[in-house]
Amino acid sequence: MNRRIPESTVRRLSHYLRSLEDFEREGGETVSSEELAARGQTTAAQVRKDLSHFGSFGKRGLGYRVDELRAHVEQILGVDRVWRVALVGAGRIGSALSDYPDFATRGYECVAILDSDPDKIGRVRGGIRIRPAKELQEAIRELGIELVIIAVPASAAQDVAEQAVQAGIRGILNFAPIRLKVPPEVSVEDVSLVMELEALSFAITQHGS
Amino acid sequence: MNRRIPESTVRRLSHYLRSLEDFEREGGETVSSEELAARGQTTAAQVRKDLSHFGSFGKRGLGYRVDELRAHVEQILGVDRVWRVALVGAGRIGSALSDYPDFATRGYECVAILDSDPDKIGRVRGGIRIRPAKELQEAIRELGIELVIIAVPASAAQDVAEQAVQAGIRGILNFAPIRLKVPPEVSVEDVSLVMELEALSFAITQHGS
Repeated sequence: MNRRIPESTVRRLSHYLRSLEDFEREGGETVSSEELAARGQTTAAQVRKDLSHFGSFGKRGLGYRVDELRAHVEQILGVDRVWRVALVGAGRIGSALSDYPDFATRGYECVAILDSDPDKIGRVRGGIRIRPAKELQEAIRELGIELVIIAVPASAAQDVAEQAVQAGIRGILNFAPIRLKVPPEVSVEDVSLVMELEALSFAITQHGS
Repeated sequence: MNRRIPESTVRRLSHYLRSLEDFEREGGETVSSEELAARGQTTAAQVRKDLSHFGSFGKRGLGYRVDELRAHVEQILGVDRVWRVALVGAGRIGSALSDYPDFATRGYECVAILDSDPDKIGRVRGGIRIRPAKELQEAIRELGIELVIIAVPASAAQDVAEQAVQAGIRGILNFAPIRLKVPPEVSVEDVSLVMELEALSFAITQHGS
């Protein structure tokens, strides 16, 4: 993969995967780019263009085989395997995540939860005993963790990120409201609910009432 | 506001606002675009360009007054006022949100929580009694709600969105893993944790191990 794939393409691939799973559940065997487009709020041409980045799929006039295309998209997104995930920060957001049933079914297995609060350390959440945050590097190496979810306060997040990177982590899902500084080979996705809300209030304000 | 402001600019404005609040807390009176850039992981030229969309700020060589610029950025983002928010769906994600302290301090006041589960209706969460989901339009009109957070299963989300739009909602924060169909004047921000994780596993997979 030499060309840089735009983030918007990756988002649409996730949407196509959801749609393909729906089609499969409904017993569909083939699907056209038009049908995929309709469910994903995009155009058939866009569907074909997005998929063309990753090779040649489907047959002209016959569409795609649902099971084959689903398997291909899973492979492209890297979800044809299990990813071992650590959650750092067992606060409110962390708690909502740690028993979020969708993660495991989608191949993201939370294998460690860490926190620096002595009141939380030792408690069991979703079948996992909460470990001290200072054991993060140890946990990553012991358990073969590849992704870290950072759900700690902003003041602690950069330190957690640096420890995770030192231990060989390649991807971070960041809930802390700061921009993490990481080496270019490490991917970071930020989830900031306040920023999402600010994007909404910006759009409404600038649109004029 | 005639020109369309890119989403990346809006994200950076949120980051500048966080940094300005930090500077203010630390007692800073003026700040340069270089200092803002350093905290926001961007360049001084980018800071000046982002702000130039919205008028002329700061004095050459003197930088910006922290309190003035904070007030300006708040105004641009529409957070110099209180937004009344309804949360639809009092499940795990909904619960984590409804007592998230940051929202209120940032001007997003959750004034209604709705759910369709009879076991949840009537319970009190964060001081708010959970109402039946079917009262959404009523609640929006009664309470002057402008933003709706949708944290219901995918199968119910489009219906909730349509009701909210009919009742005059202008912005939706959507946690359901589907693309909502709404009129162009309604803004939607999607938060899909599975999609964020997929973006990470995609990046790592395509980078090559």
